[in-house]
Parts: sequence; C-alpha cells; structure tokens
Amino acid sequence: MNNIQSYISKHKNRFLNELIELLKIPSISADSVYKEEVLKTAGAIKVSLKEAGCDTVEICKTEGYPIVYGEKIIDKNLPTVLVYGHYDVQPPDPLELWTSPPFEPVIKTSELHPEGAIYARGACDDKGQMFMHVKALEFMTATNQLPCNVKFMIEGEEEVGSSNLATFVKNNQEKLKNDVILISDTGMIANDVPSITTGLRGLSYVEVEVTGPNRDLHSGLYGGAVANPINILSKMIASLHDENNRITIPGFYNKVEELSKEERAEMAKAPFSLEKYKKALDIEAVYGEAGYTTNERNCIRPTLDVNGIWGGYIGEGAKTVIASKAFAKISMRLVPHQDWKEITQLFKTHFESIAPKGVKVKVKPHHGGQGYVTPINHIGYQAASKAYEETFGKTPIPQRSGGSIPIVALFEEELQIKTILMGFGLDSDAIHSPNEHFGIWNYLKGIETIPYFYKYFTELSK
Amino acid sequence: MNNIQSYISKHKNRFLNELIELLKIPSISADSVYKEEVLKTAGAIKVSLKEAGCDTVEICKTEGYPIVYGEKIIDKNLPTVLVYGHYDVQPPDPLELWTSPPFEPVIKTSELHPEGAIYARGACDDKGQMFMHVKALEFMTATNQLPCNVKFMIEGEEEVGSSNLATFVKNNQEKLKNDVILISDTGMIANDVPSITTGLRGLSYVEVEVTGPNRDLHSGLYGGAVANPINILSKMIASLHDENNRITIPGFYNKVEELSKEERAEMAKAPFSLEKYKKALDIEAVYGEAGYTTNERNCIRPTLDVNGIWGGYIGEGAKTVIASKAFAKISMRLVPHQDWKEITQLFKTHFESIAPKGVKVKVKPHHGGQGYVTPINHIGYQAASKAYEETFGKTPIPQRSGGSIPIVALFEEELQIKTILMGFGLDSDAIHSPNEHFGIWNYLKGIETIPYFYKYFTELSK
Repeated sequence: MNNIQSYISKHKNRFLNELIELLKIPSISADSVYKEEVLKTAGAIKVSLKEAGCDTVEICKTEGYPIVYGEKIIDKNLPTVLVYGHYDVQPPDPLELWTSPPFEPVIKTSELHPEGAIYARGACDDKGQMFMHVKALEFMTATNQLPCNVKFMIEGEEEVGSSNLATFVKNNQEKLKNDVILISDTGMIANDVPSITTGLRGLSYVEVEVTGPNRDLHSGLYGGAVANPINILSKMIASLHDENNRITIPGFYNKVEELSKEERAEMAKAPFSLEKYKKALDIEAVYGEAGYTTNERNCIRPTLDVNGIWGGYIGEGAKTVIASKAFAKISMRLVPHQDWKEITQLFKTHFESIAPKGVKVKVKPHHGGQGYVTPINHIGYQAASKAYEETFGKTPIPQRSGGSIPIVALFEEELQIKTILMGFGLDSDAIHSPNEHFGIWNYLKGIETIPYFYKYFTELSK
Repeated sequence: MNNIQSYISKHKNRFLNELIELLKIPSISADSVYKEEVLKTAGAIKVSLKEAGCDTVEICKTEGYPIVYGEKIIDKNLPTVLVYGHYDVQPPDPLELWTSPPFEPVIKTSELHPEGAIYARGACDDKGQMFMHVKALEFMTATNQLPCNVKFMIEGEEEVGSSNLATFVKNNQEKLKNDVILISDTGMIANDVPSITTGLRGLSYVEVEVTGPNRDLHSGLYGGAVANPINILSKMIASLHDENNRITIPGFYNKVEELSKEERAEMAKAPFSLEKYKKALDIEAVYGEAGYTTNERNCIRPTLDVNGIWGGYIGEGAKTVIASKAFAKISMRLVPHQDWKEITQLFKTHFESIAPKGVKVKVKPHHGGQGYVTPINHIGYQAASKAYEETFGKTPIPQRSGGSIPIVALFEEELQIKTILMGFGLDSDAIHSPNEHFGIWNYLKGIETIPYFYKYFTELSK
C-alpha cells in the first residue's frame, strides 16, 4: 500500500472532523425519543460511503431502523470483503458522570493517549471504528489500490439486539454474497500489544416483573404481612448464584465449552496485571466464579448480571410504601455451544418456578445471540495477522472477548462465512460508560492497517 | 353536646368544601419542589383555626417547615386537650395509577362509602382527619359548649420524620403544657366496628448505597469478573431475612415485647377475614414471619421492608451495563421496647459487615421513632371509649396498629403525657397509595364524636 502514511497525515484533520460531525448526532436506538436523529445518522453514513468511492449506496428500510448498504465491485472474479458496523449508540446515562456532554465531542490527551482521544458517546463503539473502514476505502479508491470487491452493511439497531438485521440478511443472500466479513467492534489488549478477537460470548437479555399486592401499600399497616415485591425480587436474584458464584439455573452449564488445560495456559500468556485492573476500577477485590481467573471469568465462562433494577419510591426523601411491582433487566453472557433461545427458556422456567406464592412473575425475553469462534488457521485471520505485523511491527495475539456481537453467529449460519474481528479500541475506552473515548492514534492506526487486510486477503485467496 | 347533629347537617356542605380546598394544595414535604405549596398550606391552617375559635394562632418557624400553633384557654383550672395533626402529605406517585388527579379532589360513591368519599392525596392522611378537629372546635365554640381548654399543634413534616417537631416540643414545654394529647392519624376496623388504637410500631428508615467499580462497565467485557453492585445489593437484602422470614440482624429481637397467650387471644377476637384480605389485595397467599397470624405480623411484630430500589439502566429498551452504584431505601417497623436509634445502629453495623470485598457500602440513617402503648385504664382512653359509645352506639375495640407516629413516643418522653389515638379512617382508604380517599360518613362521624371526648375527659378529670 503505497503512500498510505503520507495520505493519512495529509488528511488527518479532515478524518477527525468528519468523525466528530458524525458523533454529534445522538443516534440512541434504545430510546424512541431519538428516532429522527438515528435516521439522520443513516443518511450521513450514506453520503460518506458515496464520497469514499462506493459505486452504489442505498438506505434499506427494515421494520425498525434502516440498514445502509454500499458496494464497489471492481471484478467479479476477485474476492469480496463485507464490512459490517453499526451507526447507533448506547444511551449516555448517567449523564452527570460525563466530564463533557456525550454528544459534544472534545479531544483530550491522557497518559494512555498522548496524541489525544475523542470523547463522545459512540467515539469507539462503533461510529469511530466503523468510520475507519470508510476512510480506508477512501484511501484505496483515491489511490487506485483497492485490490478486491467491497460491500458495506451498516446497521442502526446493534445496541438493541439487531432484531431486523437477521431478516435483512436472510432476504438478501445474493446481494450480500462475500468471501469474508470484516468488523471493527471489539478491542485490542494495548497499543503495543495488538490482538485479534477470535471468540465472542453469546447473549440472552430478559426483563422481569414481580407483582405483589394490586396497589402500593402503607408499609406500617401491611409491612410484614404481605410479600414485598422488592424484597422478593432481591431474594430471587440472589438465588441465581450459589456460594461459588456459579449460576443455579438447572441445565445452564450443560452445553458450556470446557477449555483444555493447554488452551487455558495459552490464554494466560496474554499480559495482564490484576493490580492494575483493580486500580483502574478502584476496587479492593475482583469477584466471580470460583476456580477461574479474571480473564477466564470474563471471556470463556458464562455469566448472569442485573443491568438495571427499579421499584418503589426512588425520589428525594422517604416514603414508607410497599410497592405493588418491582422490575429488573437481566442479561446472561453465553459461551460457544450454549444456545441463547434455549438459555432464555431455561431462565424463564426457573425464574417463574422460584417465585413464592404471594407474588406473580413475568419474564419478558428481550433479545439475544449465539457465541462465536474464528479458527486462527482461517485465511481471513492470517490476512489480518499479516496486516497488523505490517503496521504494528509485531504479530497480534488471538484473544477471546467477553462481549457479544450476536450478528456474527448469524452471518455464519446464514451466509456460511467467517468473520474477522479487527478491533482497535482499548478496554479503557469506556464504551457503554460515561466518558467513552477513542484514541486518535488508534483511529488512524486502524485506517492504516485495514487496507493491508484487503491486500493480504486478496493474495491469500489466489 | 346539644344540637350537634343538626349543626353538622346544616354546615355539612361547607365542611366538605373547606376540606376540598385544603386538599387542592400539594403539600408534599418529601419533595422540595413543593416548598411554596407546603408553606401555603400552613397559612391556610392558621386561618381555619382562627375561624374555628382559637384566641391566638401563630405560625412557628422551625429549621424545616413551620408548625401551626393555636389555642383557646377558657379557664386555667380546667383540663387542657392538645390536638396534634399534620398538614403535609405523602408523594402521590405512581401518578399513572390514580383514577383522578391526586390534587383535584372528587367525590365518588362505593360499596363501602354509599354516602360518597373524597378522593385526593391527604384526604384521610392527615388533612381530612386533622380537619375534623378544627370543625369540632368550631361547633363547640359556636354553640358555647367547649368544656375545657384546647391547644392545636399542626406540623408539616410528619411524612418525612418530624425531625424539627422534637426540638420545638423540647423548647416549648410550658406553651404545650396539657393533660392529654388527641390525634386522629390512624384508622378503625370498620364503620360498624369502631376501634381505638392503643399501640403503634416504631420506625427506623435508612438509605443504603453499594458502590462497585468506579464507573459503569460493559457487561460483556467485565461481566462475571467484578462484583455487580445490583447483584450484591440484592444478595445483601435477601440475607436480611431467614427461611422463617425472621430478620437476621444480630440483636434485632433482643428487646421485642413478647405478648402473652391471653393478649394474643384477645387480639384474635377482632373481626378479620383472611379471604377478604387476600381478595382486596389480589394476592394468592399472605407472606410473613412463621408462627404469627397476619394481624400479629403487621402490628405486634417488627418488620423490615425495602421501600425503594434503583440502579443501572431503567429506561426503555436494553442496555448491557454493570452499574457503578445501586441504592435502596429500607424501613424497619419496630415494636414497644425496641429503641429505633439502637436498631438503626445494629442495621448499619450488620449491613456493612455483610458486604463482600469487591464493593463499598454506605448506610445513611434517615429518620425514625419509638413504638408506643396506651393503657386502656387511662382516663383519656375511657373518655374516648364513651365518646364512641355515644355516637356509634357500641363500645370500641382497643387495637394495636402497625403504623408509626414517632412523635407520640416523643410526647410521652418530653411532656410525660399519654396520647389518645381516635382514628376514623379505614384500611381501605389507601393512604400512601394511589386513589387515597376518606369517607364523607367517616369525616362527619369524626366531627360528631370528638366533642364528646372533650365532654367526658373533662368530667373524668374532676
């Protein structure tokens, strides 16, 4: 790839400003209040794909938010790379913890990011990482170095379960036909320790509702005599883990992939400091399933976390009330071979079965997805590995991620195509948290590395 | 008391309209947004006491909301009745469950209230019941039948712990000097089963905060590896009750008054239908401490209830986050001899001690009060009993209430005076709940019965 560094340094400021403009739009798919903004973002992506050199770009309607599709086909006989990303973002709350407004991007330097990082919701997940691919395409087309065909599929519902993408993929198999799927929606270990994600956890997300008395009650007149939905919900949630922090749902672990001693030893080689980890989170101790290390707990083991809970009086001051209802949002991270629909059903059956007589329980399945693994002997993985060697000067480490990109498993199921996860973000980027940011160095390094993937993938495909 | 019924029927509509005007003011003491409205209510009480015949009325400043004090002294040698009530109300939420706006009073009839009931926040607790005393005074002064001296002390912070009333009482012992304290802030068993409350539960109200990581985290990247504050809070709350629903805080039961078989047998005589109770609340089963009946559980036994819980993402849709913090408001109802300050400390020590290493816990004591008992041989009780016989045609049943009026214990401590709790509301009035209401029959019956208390208390004091 000739002159890539000079091209990047020449256009660096424009690359940054174009991303900043995109980050200003609050495309929060979880909250219908932002509907217009989400749609506006789709329009902006369409324009940027066109400008980057796609021959055809279209906004494809779905039951929910549209999918932006673009392609540049230079030769039917050459391989085709399908780039997937998403233009929607997580809700920014709690707002009060942001040091600058989530949709007013600012650049700040830090120890980790001496060249500065862009602070904004979506800076890394996934507007920033998705936009690297758009700019990489711009470089390849502007300098006539695009070695193969490319297709873009950028969706707007990843943060709410990609519920309509599945149908889109099913109904557009010919249009989406490709040889490898490329996604940047994961991270790497460190700027000097490049890594490629080879495994993802699956997900099952549910919402539960516990109803006690048919109205809120005075805790003095009824306290102690009726089941309090909040106390009961707490008790039910507590019972979902045993004293070893293993999940108590019958059958939950039946299909869990148990890694061999060798594989676990291989994983353990990735640089990790428990002290730094605890310090970064300001916690005295880690916490999790007995018998596994921190890195194992958050990537090769399934988990159950309450993501939100509410009930009763949560305003200022005191109210002596027994609430009629209590609610919780609960998600389970799954590992390869666990089927998310089956796990969701196991959860529902179990959770309903442990409810005491004095309450009624509703379990509403939200969304989910399967786990996924990429074999490191796949030519896509090898092409990515060579690309990192080219720009980072060292071989990347294959890494399992604790996160979930449900759609990756679906691609394999529907298109029989493997996905390569080239992530350039860091764990410290605070995605899904206040003060999400993305290092400028990482952003530009991604733009520099991606074209080499195209180069080597095309070569290895011959 | 001559012509009392004719006086009431003559002025009935005015009595209703005056109360309705008072109920239109949202005097929510727990929410500072309503500060002006709370103060406005104090002003309205001052006017109505003056109009009812008080010689002097004043609005007494405190650190918080003012106390309205009024008095009519006819003869220093005659006994003095001190009437206590409160003009503040509970927050009305959840608003969506009200069938009519909480501060736009409407009159509706029902099976229980064929003569109609006033629906509004505070209709019963305590504006309606407090205002009965103002109208009873009006009758006695207007017809020259006030048999003794009377003092009114109406506060605006009962729903948030009466934190400033204590100081006021301590500093105004001479002004408040009296022979008996009269309060209508409790209920009776049924319109055809009058009862007088002889016992109240104490209260300890705390707010807890559990902090895990220093920021919200992505549940995929960190799930399973760090303590999730919501899961931990649920676990800690669940552990506060054992399998018999007894509270597990060490020392919690040490001073609990154990009633004799005889006393429990006496209590059991009060008419009660478990089927009706469950039907009214639409619950399949009751729930509580093993070895006690429903009526015992909610009045002679201490309890622990979560009144509110919140943490993480509680908005629309899904967010896969591990919250940095989780919160709960917890209240304990106490029985005579349990000291609320001691119990609060026991809770704090225990709750902090059960926190796992991965989290930090804060316990913020909110407010509280002691339990209370009135002996039925007290002349105040006897006077009240004769008053009910006069207007209900039957002897009232002495009854323990599960509720708390912390100030009652304080009156005894500071003024060495017993309190008589003449409540005219019903459990079904939904105080502290949506659609609070107060029967017009009950309101007028109270106004009719109260003057007889003055009559008999004066006679029995000779």
